Amino acid sequence: MRKQIDIVTIMPEVLEKLTKLGLLLGSGTNCNPMTIGWGSYGIMWNKPVFTIMIRPVRHSFTLLEQHGEFTINVPSDDMRKEIGICGSQSGRDTDKLAECRFTTENSSTISVPAIKECPIHLECRIIFKNDVIAGSLPKEVIDLYYPHADLHRFYYGEILGAWREE
Amino acid sequence: MRKQIDIVTIMPEVLEKLTKLGLLLGSGTNCNPMTIGWGSYGIMWNKPVFTIMIRPVRHSFTLLEQHGEFTINVPSDDMRKEIGICGSQSGRDTDKLAECRFTTENSSTISVPAIKECPIHLECRIIFKNDVIAGSLPKEVIDLYYPHADLHRFYYGEILGAWREE
Repeated sequence: MRKQIDIVTIMPEVLEKLTKLGLLLGSGTNCNPMTIGWGSYGIMWNKPVFTIMIRPVRHSFTLLEQHGEFTINVPSDDMRKEIGICGSQSGRDTDKLAECRFTTENSSTISVPAIKECPIHLECRIIFKNDVIAGSLPKEVIDLYYPHADLHRFYYGEILGAWREE
Repeated sequence: MRKQIDIVTIMPEVLEKLTKLGLLLGSGTNCNPMTIGWGSYGIMWNKPVFTIMIRPVRHSFTLLEQHGEFTINVPSDDMRKEIGICGSQSGRDTDKLAECRFTTENSSTISVPAIKECPIHLECRIIFKNDVIAGSLPKEVIDLYYPHADLHRFYYGEILGAWREE
């Protein structure tokens, strides 16, 4: 059973998990999961928005470009192993859902499902995207994160629904 | 007296105030205050980042471009009048600090001061900026917020310090 929750009230819990463990980005109609440790939660254009940063080399990048939607799945604290799998393998050659023994559940507002085993889900539709421009960043950030110029794309997802598994 | 607080722990309180009342952006070496109702709080490039959106026509835009730093001042619930003043007047022709009877306090890490009467301050240095691209947004967003093509600039501020007045 899942219950709709307030998008603003849930912000702290999502951000706390982002900083302490990571979140699982789901993309594509099969919900290919990818661990993310960076992201931002806020209000833009009067809408609740979750912003993610994805490199073009990722399988998730292709799926995001194809479908324009994603889910944010907030893991429970005992999912460290799954966070490791989804952060180190690619959905191109691995069925990460199967490897994590995750099952999916249809979303209410978008075509990308959510991970049923994760206690909180956000359903997001991309309303804006923009690219990191190397020239605008401090040199130490470029040296550390972009030695191969594989610059992130920002995806701004309007949060259309938030749910808690109960 | 002010006390340093944890940047991650304080996120929920800042975001709640953003959605319910607004925040006061301080820019320039005098801390010209401007009310903002949009913004985003998260982790990017492994750093805590507060993202703001400012239109080029604003006086704050000029100050941000000149100094590259800003403070986020979280108002108390009884500051509705001040939020109104700082959201409707321009620092070009009004001393909004005087009008609000606000005083300022030096920041610890940047040259832009904070508003002493606000209970929470974030000190931010801009590490990245990017512009809204009209072609990437849904038509209803463009019609509603950009009828005159006065597109926002995103400023990503690394949060260098967070403080609570006690």
